[in-house]
Amino acid sequence: MSAENSSIKKVVLAYSGGLDTSVIVKWLQETYQCEVVTFTANIGQGEEVEPARAKAQAMGVKEIYIEDLREEFVRDYVFPMFRANAIYEGEYLLGTSIARPLIAKRMIEIANETGADAISHGATGKGNDQVRFELGAYALKPGVKVIAPWREWNLTSRETLMAYCKEHEIPVDFAKATKKSPYSMDANLLHISYEGDILENPWVEAEADMWRWTVSPEQAPDTPEYIEISFEKGDPVAINGEAMSPATILETLNKKGGAHGIGRLDIVENRYVGMKSRGCYETPGGTILLPAHRAIESITLDREVAHFKDALMPKYADLVYNGYWWSPERKMMQAAIDESQACVNGDVRLKLYKGAVTVVGRRSADSLFDESIATFEDDAGAYDQKDAAGFIKLNALRMRIAAQKGRKLEN
Amino acid sequence: MSAENSSIKKVVLAYSGGLDTSVIVKWLQETYQCEVVTFTANIGQGEEVEPARAKAQAMGVKEIYIEDLREEFVRDYVFPMFRANAIYEGEYLLGTSIARPLIAKRMIEIANETGADAISHGATGKGNDQVRFELGAYALKPGVKVIAPWREWNLTSRETLMAYCKEHEIPVDFAKATKKSPYSMDANLLHISYEGDILENPWVEAEADMWRWTVSPEQAPDTPEYIEISFEKGDPVAINGEAMSPATILETLNKKGGAHGIGRLDIVENRYVGMKSRGCYETPGGTILLPAHRAIESITLDREVAHFKDALMPKYADLVYNGYWWSPERKMMQAAIDESQACVNGDVRLKLYKGAVTVVGRRSADSLFDESIATFEDDAGAYDQKDAAGFIKLNALRMRIAAQKGRKLEN
Amino acid sequence: MSAENSSIKKVVLAYSGGLDTSVIVKWLQETYQCEVVTFTANIGQGEEVEPARAKAQAMGVKEIYIEDLREEFVRDYVFPMFRANAIYEGEYLLGTSIARPLIAKRMIEIANETGADAISHGATGKGNDQVRFELGAYALKPGVKVIAPWREWNLTSRETLMAYCKEHEIPVDFAKATKKSPYSMDANLLHISYEGDILENPWVEAEADMWRWTVSPEQAPDTPEYIEISFEKGDPVAINGEAMSPATILETLNKKGGAHGIGRLDIVENRYVGMKSRGCYETPGGTILLPAHRAIESITLDREVAHFKDALMPKYADLVYNGYWWSPERKMMQAAIDESQACVNGDVRLKLYKGAVTVVGRRSADSLFDESIATFEDDAGAYDQKDAAGFIKLNALRMRIAAQKGRKLEN
Amino acid sequence: MSAENSSIKKVVLAYSGGLDTSVIVKWLQETYQCEVVTFTANIGQGEEVEPARAKAQAMGVKEIYIEDLREEFVRDYVFPMFRANAIYEGEYLLGTSIARPLIAKRMIEIANETGADAISHGATGKGNDQVRFELGAYALKPGVKVIAPWREWNLTSRETLMAYCKEHEIPVDFAKATKKSPYSMDANLLHISYEGDILENPWVEAEADMWRWTVSPEQAPDTPEYIEISFEKGDPVAINGEAMSPATILETLNKKGGAHGIGRLDIVENRYVGMKSRGCYETPGGTILLPAHRAIESITLDREVAHFKDALMPKYADLVYNGYWWSPERKMMQAAIDESQACVNGDVRLKLYKGAVTVVGRRSADSLFDESIATFEDDAGAYDQKDAAGFIKLNALRMRIAAQKGRKLEN
Repeated sequence: MSAENSSIKKVVLAYSGGLDTSVIVKWLQETYQCEVVTFTANIGQGEEVEPARAKAQAMGVKEIYIEDLREEFVRDYVFPMFRANAIYEGEYLLGTSIARPLIAKRMIEIANETGADAISHGATGKGNDQVRFELGAYALKPGVKVIAPWREWNLTSRETLMAYCKEHEIPVDFAKATKKSPYSMDANLLHISYEGDILENPWVEAEADMWRWTVSPEQAPDTPEYIEISFEKGDPVAINGEAMSPATILETLNKKGGAHGIGRLDIVENRYVGMKSRGCYETPGGTILLPAHRAIESITLDREVAHFKDALMPKYADLVYNGYWWSPERKMMQAAIDESQACVNGDVRLKLYKGAVTVVGRRSADSLFDESIATFEDDAGAYDQKDAAGFIKLNALRMRIAAQKGRKLEN
Repeated sequence: MSAENSSIKKVVLAYSGGLDTSVIVKWLQETYQCEVVTFTANIGQGEEVEPARAKAQAMGVKEIYIEDLREEFVRDYVFPMFRANAIYEGEYLLGTSIARPLIAKRMIEIANETGADAISHGATGKGNDQVRFELGAYALKPGVKVIAPWREWNLTSRETLMAYCKEHEIPVDFAKATKKSPYSMDANLLHISYEGDILENPWVEAEADMWRWTVSPEQAPDTPEYIEISFEKGDPVAINGEAMSPATILETLNKKGGAHGIGRLDIVENRYVGMKSRGCYETPGGTILLPAHRAIESITLDREVAHFKDALMPKYADLVYNGYWWSPERKMMQAAIDESQACVNGDVRLKLYKGAVTVVGRRSADSLFDESIATFEDDAGAYDQKDAAGFIKLNALRMRIAAQKGRKLEN
Repeated sequence: MSAENSSIKKVVLAYSGGLDTSVIVKWLQETYQCEVVTFTANIGQGEEVEPARAKAQAMGVKEIYIEDLREEFVRDYVFPMFRANAIYEGEYLLGTSIARPLIAKRMIEIANETGADAISHGATGKGNDQVRFELGAYALKPGVKVIAPWREWNLTSRETLMAYCKEHEIPVDFAKATKKSPYSMDANLLHISYEGDILENPWVEAEADMWRWTVSPEQAPDTPEYIEISFEKGDPVAINGEAMSPATILETLNKKGGAHGIGRLDIVENRYVGMKSRGCYETPGGTILLPAHRAIESITLDREVAHFKDALMPKYADLVYNGYWWSPERKMMQAAIDESQACVNGDVRLKLYKGAVTVVGRRSADSLFDESIATFEDDAGAYDQKDAAGFIKLNALRMRIAAQKGRKLEN
Repeated sequence: MSAENSSIKKVVLAYSGGLDTSVIVKWLQETYQCEVVTFTANIGQGEEVEPARAKAQAMGVKEIYIEDLREEFVRDYVFPMFRANAIYEGEYLLGTSIARPLIAKRMIEIANETGADAISHGATGKGNDQVRFELGAYALKPGVKVIAPWREWNLTSRETLMAYCKEHEIPVDFAKATKKSPYSMDANLLHISYEGDILENPWVEAEADMWRWTVSPEQAPDTPEYIEISFEKGDPVAINGEAMSPATILETLNKKGGAHGIGRLDIVENRYVGMKSRGCYETPGGTILLPAHRAIESITLDREVAHFKDALMPKYADLVYNGYWWSPERKMMQAAIDESQACVNGDVRLKLYKGAVTVVGRRSADSLFDESIATFEDDAGAYDQKDAAGFIKLNALRMRIAAQKGRKLEN
């Protein structure tokens, strides 16, 4: 225990109820002689959160927070991010990244409510999640102490962990623990992720039975399904004409996508801490939502606004991935993105089939698509083709002058 | 005929051998009283080019160029563009755009060889292709005259065109002309495109029998196919271990992709001339190549290099789409991109199935993926988890100071 | 007169009262047989606008608008632009560019009030101003007709213009007209510009007696003057503690800057229409305001916000220069910039001396400068220097891995 | 001494010969029981480097490197950076930053030559220089150990340092040490910097006697001096027609600039480690070189190339400032920048007077400035003003369509 931490009185722990974070409860109590407040949130990970209460109580925890944050998660985090069409490194839909700022925010709010002076989490010292939790915490409560047991303790193998449990009589479900997935996993309403084990060799294909949320495309129905998503101000608000809450929208898309084998991804990504890592992801709903959002934007956004959004996007995605949701630069960028979404209203029709999602139609009362101009038929003077000659000539002028003065463009 | 053009002596025409450009041959001869040189290139559009010779001869053309440019097209245009992972507006693989600079370059070279003072093409005044042809021409031969008949003449309907043909005894295949597709189409080794007709309503799904290069996913084989693509310096050089020329690589991927229903795209895009237009595209080979290239980059490129490439990409794609291939800024950008590809070597394994292409493995002698560091197991000191605490604290410092001074990040 | 324009009934003309636009009044009346509405604005060009009334009346103009727009100009155009620290091509403070959108907007509003169907202006066909006027007009009233006499008529030399005046008895001050400056000039509260004549040779230094708003540095006072500018939300609100209106702020800074020889600029710039042109500018107040704004930002803006602003700036400046003030992309960008300025409050102290302006101090109640951390003295634990080791090690990790795998960074 | 460092055998120290690094020699010998290799470079800091030899010998150092790196510094670091027109945060010419990669590179080369396994430097744990040294070292020799005494020892005040010297009989010039400047300073051929002491209050003006390389503008000559700088491929090669080596160019410009009071800068900047700090800089030669380079670019660079360079510049400057000179992304960016400079040849004429540098003329055999087109006089048909109408109309099209469909741009 470092000197800095000797004064810690109470710590809020992001507690899943699982083995690792149960060990952390005990380890914090023992190592820091401090009170532990547990915080368990339902963000759509697909497991019951209520059992965490009894486990925490059994370890002597007095202040226990268990909350359903699904609507807030989708409304205030997932949807704003999708307004930006954010994808990290051309592939990754940021499913893990986007859940962390909400957890960080609630931990700090609970710390303020309970008078805690520290927070703690179960993320390892090699990953991005520690960064996301802690940057958020520091940004929202600059004097907070952070305890990251995986960077401090020496319970670095499963064996030492299990021994610690046995010794401290930690009430975990050992049966479940032993038949545990070999992968390091994370889940929320947007996605489930897999890392580690055989995935550490990026040449080896993921095993068929690893995937949990989607059927394989081969096992998906032989008949395509068509769906219609309606948007208001850039956010999806209805499926097949039925209005739904944000979380219900995403749950519904997850179910449909999963059934059609949609949303599997297998990539090697660059972590913020400097290493490459291989991850597999299932993001069924998000994989439908992204092209749908792009499609409604394609008829409602001005060209230069759309291109400016595309230019901003990689940086926005970096900010989310690297843990800077709670930063003034993300806020500034969001202001521009949200400004652009005022007219992003309308419907998109999509086809779901055997792992692929295809946009087949889009319409909007705010459409900027003008058939009378775009038509190959006579446009009755809506567009004067002769204008194009001047347009081209002036755009070419700088290059014509350069060529006249002897500049060569061919090598 | 404007005063400027009265002096035109000889014009090089991009001649397909089809109805429209045959009319243009006659119209140029008649309107400008000038000699016409025809230039017909095989860039993989899938039609015979040799028949264009007899047609041109029949109209009195003396200088006839017919060339197979497929290897040059793929090697010097398609592959450099794929090094950039270029996608226009998040979706479009730039299949039409990338063929134009090659045609423009050859037209100018032929103009120089034959002493022609003008070039002509059959692109309309509403589209992007006129811009791409003409920007290229002006950049490479600044004093060249450009004749764009569709911006000048009054043969604006199929009827007037056909009447013109009859009147001038233009030897076109009328049988073929009448059963012509209702769509405006363009094809080359990278893709085939469809515009117009019912596609002008963006809510209406494209008809099943419109598509020509790919089977529908529903009709694709029920068994996935796995393939392996090998890269050298960012370019694909072999498929399943067999070395192939650039054009053969793309042809092979087109065949495989087409058979599996891969590469269909239906979008509304923003044209450079200012309107939105709806286009459908089949790009089977390119749709396989792009994720494959990203995958080999994912293990061989430095993170910041990859992110910088992603930041450059939208602008690079704009340049190609808008017709600025032959510009100093594209050349400058290409220098950076090519510099990044020196170590982009290795193999990617992909699964093709019912319209979807999935990366399942990647390996390289130049891999930067380091299992010993990324592992969830003990890394024997390769990475000191304690470093992460300092990393996070300094990255958080500016936000902690701001929060201490009362700045709020939550609204 | 083209067919399109034959139907023009009433046109709003941006009327300076000078020779050129007086000729245009007559030419419009004669060529289009239409009614002309004149619009003359005081935007700080330093000439009386009221005399324009009698001149217009003398030519039979019935609807005459004469307006003082100085406060609106500075408040709604100049200041928002300075929030962005906008500079075109590293040098030019956009003095001409920023006045055009206001003129365009008022012309359209007047067209709507008077039932005019067209606007007209006196900008030439080679410059940027035609683009700025017309893009603004089209964006705000898409069906408006635009008449740009310099692109239509054949009064292309001073002689033919003068002959036209004589023939049509245009009441211009010929005495003044003959001793007119040899330069093409433009002025408003932000700057005065000079183009043409000997400046067309970019190697030749501008003549000493060309400059009108500033003394030469050699003739400026031998004693420096110190001033203090106060900012609120990114805009200057007071000088030396005295609160002033936007226009008064700029007028005051112009006077002070001009007296100290501050704000002269001599550049070759790239016009939007494709050519290079040489321009000389005097922007005394703006040349003080820009470093002052940067200085107050330097202590009140977060680092990443400041860097993001710097990354956006060149594009923002292009938009203003090219005439896209009235565009959705400028509006979107402005939303982000304005979001960043909420805490840009405080005072900046500057020294003005012989052509140079130097920031010597800055302070703010919203300062993020933290002496207790930045100090070279003991910081009492505010910053743990050991954190830096981890920060550096993780930032270096990707490069260390690359080097271990044999990548070379030296050529 | 940490376990990791217990095995250190030999360390290369960046040794200035001054008090602080002399203490470090002793402290390294004592703490790590290792051999110390000293490396002292003349990079134009303006102090003799040869005296470092005797001092090092007196402390028992056996391997002593003393080198004159001025030409290499300017040719391979300063000039490539000026090709990019790099400025950090709109103001800072990166004088300190750009010297670090050269020092880091030589330290690693010397480590390789002498078989050393570690390097050491005298930079503090709060600043940017530690990062620049160490990122460079790790990138070039990934297994190297780094010893940063200021992050490790407890000699954190001047008193404890002096006591250490006395105790260890370190042969420093105490007389000189005591009358030392109160500022933390750094100098090389590009600049000299000042931090600390009264500068820690950003509202207080720097004292007149702090500045060392420039006279105050008030004391500069009352007569301006005109100079001419010639460029080849973006680098200055001659002054007033006299060819000079890179270092001589910069020395000459420093002398001229210093005599005219040019190059003082007083800013608050954002450090990479997360805090704001106030710095004063004198960069006389660089302050002349930057506008000169921009001026020669203004007539020789294509517009879009110039704008692309401006868009890249802030990121390039960040990389240099943050210590990523030896990174693949800087190398990639440099490839684009260098590609752009092939035609940046010609002469620039400048006026130096009382703190201000003004460009007054520029000429080049590679100029793209075309008087025949830019002229306000008759251009004999070089430019058809009617082209502008089409250019504007198509650029306005997207906004006209939007307005017709009811979009509002005014708030």
